[in-house]
Amino acid sequence: MKSKKKAVVLLSGGMDSCITAAEAVIKHSEVFFLHFSYRQRTEKRELKAFNEIAKFFSVKNKIILKSDFLKIIGGSSLTDFSKNLGKSRIDGIPDTYVPFRNGIFISIASAFAESVGAEYIYIGAVWEDSSGYPDCRPEFYKAMNKAVNLGTRPSSKIKIITPIINLKKSEIIKKGIRLKAPLHLTWSCYQNSRIACGKCESCKLRLKAFKEAGIIDPIPYKK
Amino acid sequence: MKSKKKAVVLLSGGMDSCITAAEAVIKHSEVFFLHFSYRQRTEKRELKAFNEIAKFFSVKNKIILKSDFLKIIGGSSLTDFSKNLGKSRIDGIPDTYVPFRNGIFISIASAFAESVGAEYIYIGAVWEDSSGYPDCRPEFYKAMNKAVNLGTRPSSKIKIITPIINLKKSEIIKKGIRLKAPLHLTWSCYQNSRIACGKCESCKLRLKAFKEAGIIDPIPYKK
Repeated sequence: MKSKKKAVVLLSGGMDSCITAAEAVIKHSEVFFLHFSYRQRTEKRELKAFNEIAKFFSVKNKIILKSDFLKIIGGSSLTDFSKNLGKSRIDGIPDTYVPFRNGIFISIASAFAESVGAEYIYIGAVWEDSSGYPDCRPEFYKAMNKAVNLGTRPSSKIKIITPIINLKKSEIIKKGIRLKAPLHLTWSCYQNSRIACGKCESCKLRLKAFKEAGIIDPIPYKK
Repeated sequence: MKSKKKAVVLLSGGMDSCITAAEAVIKHSEVFFLHFSYRQRTEKRELKAFNEIAKFFSVKNKIILKSDFLKIIGGSSLTDFSKNLGKSRIDGIPDTYVPFRNGIFISIASAFAESVGAEYIYIGAVWEDSSGYPDCRPEFYKAMNKAVNLGTRPSSKIKIITPIINLKKSEIIKKGIRLKAPLHLTWSCYQNSRIACGKCESCKLRLKAFKEAGIIDPIPYKK
């Protein structure tokens, strides 16, 4: 029996958000897929994955928000194309970290949830077995949820759901298979191309996780 | 003696943010003025006020972020021009409330602060004597500050400063005079015109506050 409470899902088009979306679609009768185009390297390719995943789930409530402020703000190799990708760390955090990106995304999703009367926000953040981005830790989501509830209408009562935050990458894949998530439509590669490179840090992480899970990655890779 | 720690100031061009900016400029040797153009009714007029205030304070670090997502999100008479302004309330909150707007602005300001190495974020939120927007309450800023610190680099240590949150409108004006804030350059009116109407809810609130403070409002009004 699905919940009649509406849910907003942050869906980038990557594996983690796709599996998170699968869970939301199973649990809620009305879901809204929210996507950000923020002038990141893979903007077009991610949007393609987002649209294909929404089509797979027959989700018509698609919201695509465009903004160049994360690029203007800078501080990340994902949005500053003059920087080398995945080559350095500050405070142990990779250069692909976009300052407080998930905080911004949760804030905007909260505004949207309040506007459409949704009580749930799903985000595919991963802490265990992950890159160490501070805006992926469980304590952050707990604190952020409290802030969101204090900063919105008393009737809004928004809950932030992070279904895979404590899973390992290989466990996430197994969960995706179990939920019948369309992993063949997801995009993880740092390149904005048709076929994944198989060589960047993100592709390597993905391939390693599939190997550990004992499952064959359904997407093609460049030879 | 000014602090050498950098400060980001959210400056809309209204009275509250202008007085908040005055305090930041007095206290910090390097400030960044951050302005949002979010397709609100008074977008152009507010931007004019922002630029004039920045010029007054000789602040060169101006960042203007444009986005239409608050308009797409909707839910407010400030961004939805088909709605009547200031005519209705839900949960006791006026229709001019933009869902979680200050939460979004603080999130983006936090990302920017982290990117430029600023430790302080100033925002002119007012709770006492105000409209009752949930994202103006002191508890919200306390919770949001905690979330921001958990979601950013351990070295970032951002502090959100709300210098006028507990002041009455008339006290804010007196503070503005004391700090020599350029109140003659500020814009409060809900209309996007050259001269303030003097009749909308926002003009009425402003005029009442000046009267209570026993000070003459330096801006002209339509006859």
